[in-house]
Amino acid sequence: MTSTVDASPFVNSPARALVCRGCGTEFPLAAQHACYECFGPLEVAYDPAALKRVTREEIAGGPPNIWRYASLLPAGQDPATRVTLDPGFTPLVPAPALAREVGLRAPLWVKDDSANPTHSFKDRVVSVALTAARALGFDRYACASTGNLANSVAAHAARAGVPSMVFIPSDLEPGKVITTAVYGGDVVAIDGSYDDVNRLCSELTETDEFESTAFVNVNVRPFYAEGSRTLGYEVAEQLGWRLPKQVVIPMASGELLTKIDKAFAELVEFGLVEAPADGWRVFGAQSAGCNPIALALQEGRDDIIPQKPTGIAKSLNIGDPAAGVYALEAVRRSGGWMAYADDEEIRDAIGLLARTTGIFAETAGGTTVAALRKLVAEGRLDPEAETVVYNTGEGLKTLDAVADRVGPTYRVKPSLRAARDAGLLG
Amino acid sequence: MTSTVDASPFVNSPARALVCRGCGTEFPLAAQHACYECFGPLEVAYDPAALKRVTREEIAGGPPNIWRYASLLPAGQDPATRVTLDPGFTPLVPAPALAREVGLRAPLWVKDDSANPTHSFKDRVVSVALTAARALGFDRYACASTGNLANSVAAHAARAGVPSMVFIPSDLEPGKVITTAVYGGDVVAIDGSYDDVNRLCSELTETDEFESTAFVNVNVRPFYAEGSRTLGYEVAEQLGWRLPKQVVIPMASGELLTKIDKAFAELVEFGLVEAPADGWRVFGAQSAGCNPIALALQEGRDDIIPQKPTGIAKSLNIGDPAAGVYALEAVRRSGGWMAYADDEEIRDAIGLLARTTGIFAETAGGTTVAALRKLVAEGRLDPEAETVVYNTGEGLKTLDAVADRVGPTYRVKPSLRAARDAGLLG
Ligand SMILES: Cc1ncc(COP(=O)(O)O)c(C=O)c1O
Ligand SMILES: Cc1ncc(COP(=O)(O)O)c(C=O)c1O
Ligand SMILES: [Zn+2]
Ligand SMILES: [Zn+2]
Repeated sequence: MTSTVDASPFVNSPARALVCRGCGTEFPLAAQHACYECFGPLEVAYDPAALKRVTREEIAGGPPNIWRYASLLPAGQDPATRVTLDPGFTPLVPAPALAREVGLRAPLWVKDDSANPTHSFKDRVVSVALTAARALGFDRYACASTGNLANSVAAHAARAGVPSMVFIPSDLEPGKVITTAVYGGDVVAIDGSYDDVNRLCSELTETDEFESTAFVNVNVRPFYAEGSRTLGYEVAEQLGWRLPKQVVIPMASGELLTKIDKAFAELVEFGLVEAPADGWRVFGAQSAGCNPIALALQEGRDDIIPQKPTGIAKSLNIGDPAAGVYALEAVRRSGGWMAYADDEEIRDAIGLLARTTGIFAETAGGTTVAALRKLVAEGRLDPEAETVVYNTGEGLKTLDAVADRVGPTYRVKPSLRAARDAGLLG
Repeated sequence: MTSTVDASPFVNSPARALVCRGCGTEFPLAAQHACYECFGPLEVAYDPAALKRVTREEIAGGPPNIWRYASLLPAGQDPATRVTLDPGFTPLVPAPALAREVGLRAPLWVKDDSANPTHSFKDRVVSVALTAARALGFDRYACASTGNLANSVAAHAARAGVPSMVFIPSDLEPGKVITTAVYGGDVVAIDGSYDDVNRLCSELTETDEFESTAFVNVNVRPFYAEGSRTLGYEVAEQLGWRLPKQVVIPMASGELLTKIDKAFAELVEFGLVEAPADGWRVFGAQSAGCNPIALALQEGRDDIIPQKPTGIAKSLNIGDPAAGVYALEAVRRSGGWMAYADDEEIRDAIGLLARTTGIFAETAGGTTVAALRKLVAEGRLDPEAETVVYNTGEGLKTLDAVADRVGPTYRVKPSLRAARDAGLLG
């Protein structure tokens, strides 16, 4: 891939350019992710007039997946051009019993993104990234992943009939490795952390052999990141086109958090929701084993000190988070906060969420619910304000986290007498 | 529960009575599942005038889940009365690459019901059964299960805040036990087969201690079975209100198959789809380790000889299938056939489906795809006729089936040199 391409693949798109998040320099829409001036990360910029034309009715008339927001996304306006499993429009579940248990007196909702095709929110970002990648002419799909992203890229590639090569740390959960490898693409296990994996992938994008390979979160990262905005749009639409007062969001690179915040701001700017009287507050969740963003916030620093991650929330284990400073900025600006939970708290929270809502989350979801609980207990979250907590992944992928805690409550022979002896009849 | 109750819980329902599938005797709508005259199984009967009033527009205006068909279901017309995770409206995925691999030259679709909230089609039947159970006044939810049903009942009960007690064979896959137990209800592991579990549950429903417990597939089974019809309606609606020529469906009790066939017949009868010139043909899938229905068909018998099931397709391991004779009847009437696959064929088919469609199925889905392949190879399925194959469960629940076949294709140190040495750069 050359770094500038003809803009025509994006001719029906509201996207206009890539713009540096650091210095504001603009670049044409292409497979470029860092600024040539300051090395800052690039972000997709839109034609505001195009976005302002979008109406609630147009969205409501779209399909029950992320593509109902196609006119707000950088690629995929024409359904025939999409590389997608049609993720999104996942349930927004009222959670009154969970609210009671954590001490919230206002409505609480769980946005359950484990309901996506490969059971994490990553299907959203992958669908947008690969649709852009195809438009840009790439013919192999890749990523650096903590697990869920690899699963999603491999599945998308299988559906599209395109080769894939995904890169993961070699110590990932079996549930994530098997469910990725089953799609038949290449799975490269790296003896190192996610940050090592990511560094290697950056180097590979510079080689001739990978010239036509799209790494969704490296060389086409600006497009990838945009997919997360749909997690903001959907919550607003599902609430009847209004914003919640508080949202709690898991952080690995921090990208998801910044994009949900951005989506809310866009909805207000483009008149799709009314500006709430006192705005909305954004809260971030990390694990104690990997908390570089939360620690910077709590210690009042502007810089993120990289870590060597540990602990069971492996999908969140990014020690050197690419969007960390932007997540800090969004949380500070909104008057929110960040919390982190240790492995025991994460396990407890998986159980709590399951018992009170019927939703079985992976460790990332446990981390987020544990953070919700802490944030209420510490008085950071207003217990009287409506809150949405994001569950971004599926419990079946991290069974080991709860395997030694739950199991059959009775084991009996198949007879009424045995059932009675076991106490089943009270 | 008394066996007859006031009919008022069903006042807004098109359901009219329970009718014996054997002798045709009618009974009031209640928690009764066997005929007092002939011990035959009961089925819900509807007011034909009510069903005939249902329009495509009314359905299209409903929510993107099974409740869009509420006016065709026995319970849940009022959203406030539902006990549900809102399952259904799962993807109908075009599968041209899979068609090529199995030798079909007409369009092939996978109805991917692993996309339901607890990742199997059982959420459909549980939502309908528990909504009826609540209307009938039951205050605890239960089932006899090969795995998926237990998962769904436990999750529904948690969401509804109602106690549950589910019964499973003690040798189930860990993925099914953990994901059921995590919801905090009682999980009773029985040292025996599913048929033993089922027998015990029947006995328990007769005890005073279980008088107010709804066993979804025992004492409220007639309502439960109706939920499967939505898997027929959805396929027709997703095809633009028409029927496929051929469908391939997994069988355990055989209930699902009979209800999809029934749903197609109803759609024609009520004018929601045009009657196809030469009907539709229904094909059944079982595993070699549990094939009592398929064997009866292939050997030209009318009676089902019970078996002791073996093999990896545990969710289909019902050796004494309650609806087996009705499944036989539907397949014969439609001019279809049945096939069974051994464990190796099932494993192969899981991989084939994943590689060609991006869908990761559990062993039940592998069984069905393996059967599809056989039925084409044997000339039973017409390779020129449009076909829908049902995937009813999720691969993450039966990881062991493929765990020793798939894994990382490369393992390398995090350096460009190591990547090059491993052959990653071609
Ligand atoms: C389940 C899950 N939730 C949340 C995240 C965080 O995403 P981000 O890197 O955008 O902060 C990830 C990232 O891998 C994830 O897998
Ligand atoms: C995944 C899956 N598919 C299919 C079936 C078959 O259902 P039925 O008993 O209605 O034939 C089951 C039953 O448990 C199942 O779990
Ligand atoms: Zn710059
Ligand atoms: Zn009878």
